[in-house]
Amino acid sequence: MQIGTYTYEEYVQIVKSFHGFLAPGVLIGGFMVDLALKRKPEGEFFDALSETPVCLPDAIQILTPCTVGNGWLTIMGIGRFALALYEKQGGQGIRVYLDTEKLKAWPEAYHWYLKLKTKKEQNYQRLIEEIKEAGHEMLGIQRVRVEPETLRRPKFGPVGHCPACGEAYPQAHGDRCKACQGESPYLEA
Amino acid sequence: MQIGTYTYEEYVQIVKSFHGFLAPGVLIGGFMVDLALKRKPEGEFFDALSETPVCLPDAIQILTPCTVGNGWLTIMGIGRFALALYEKQGGQGIRVYLDTEKLKAWPEAYHWYLKLKTKKEQNYQRLIEEIKEAGHEMLGIQRVRVEPETLRRPKFGPVGHCPACGEAYPQAHGDRCKACQGESPYLEA
Repeated sequence: MQIGTYTYEEYVQIVKSFHGFLAPGVLIGGFMVDLALKRKPEGEFFDALSETPVCLPDAIQILTPCTVGNGWLTIMGIGRFALALYEKQGGQGIRVYLDTEKLKAWPEAYHWYLKLKTKKEQNYQRLIEEIKEAGHEMLGIQRVRVEPETLRRPKFGPVGHCPACGEAYPQAHGDRCKACQGESPYLEA
Repeated sequence: MQIGTYTYEEYVQIVKSFHGFLAPGVLIGGFMVDLALKRKPEGEFFDALSETPVCLPDAIQILTPCTVGNGWLTIMGIGRFALALYEKQGGQGIRVYLDTEKLKAWPEAYHWYLKLKTKKEQNYQRLIEEIKEAGHEMLGIQRVRVEPETLRRPKFGPVGHCPACGEAYPQAHGDRCKACQGESPYLEA
């Protein structure tokens, strides 16, 4: 059993190291990315889209060249547990999602995914075993097309010095940096 | 020379593997995270904040337990090249930023950071050498405090089936999923 270029055991180790623990969502995400990599249309360069910030982005970052920091991974908050890999220029791609109908065959995973059990009621070992057993079989797949330009992180243009904090910032943000315009997350300077 | 728990050479290899290439920003980011890890206040659990989505999140994900997918890394778009590590409960933390005054001692890095040279005019090798030579010396550091609750990714609550697409989604999003409310990135179903 392979997940991307890794064996199952290798992938589990990398998830523990990168994500901190073997989260069910990152394990399912591994199978999702694996399926997407095998079924993506022709093309040399692919960008990735995750429809949720939860778990799935880490599977994508582990298994593909796409990361948050290099801008090839876009994370949306539309809340479905789904990802797409799409060709960078034309936007032709493949979407993989967790299919709740298929998921019914694995009751522990079904209850976990739909939050029908509390964390205490869940059997973590059984959940992981079910996910491993199911592999691609709980997944759905669709051809999709996106507009790559609308998903790409915008170039931030010329850089200036903020007259308030003195740090460099994208001049496109205004006459001072956004932190000094009131968006600072810090309670004291 | 150490970057986190890695040697310089090890870190460079990991950056190439994870980020795809040795980006100057991820190299500087490595020194920034390293400094923050050494100077953070006492406390057992730290979350991370990146003030920019560009490069820096990857240095954080490589060198700390905080990732996008596990929710311990928050990425803001306020545009300064700065990060903070803060104690999860109380919000006491340390902020590390690129200090443009100090940066003037390394001209290739200064010109790169303030975009005073086009990519063609840049000397990539000299830039990397300067960053390596400077290490922590181009960085500034501040104690900060944040409100952890405001930065934490919200729990998404009960899950429902979207009556339009049939997929699971957070019921808090409304009577159908956000994709089916018009936020879908896909041009065709």
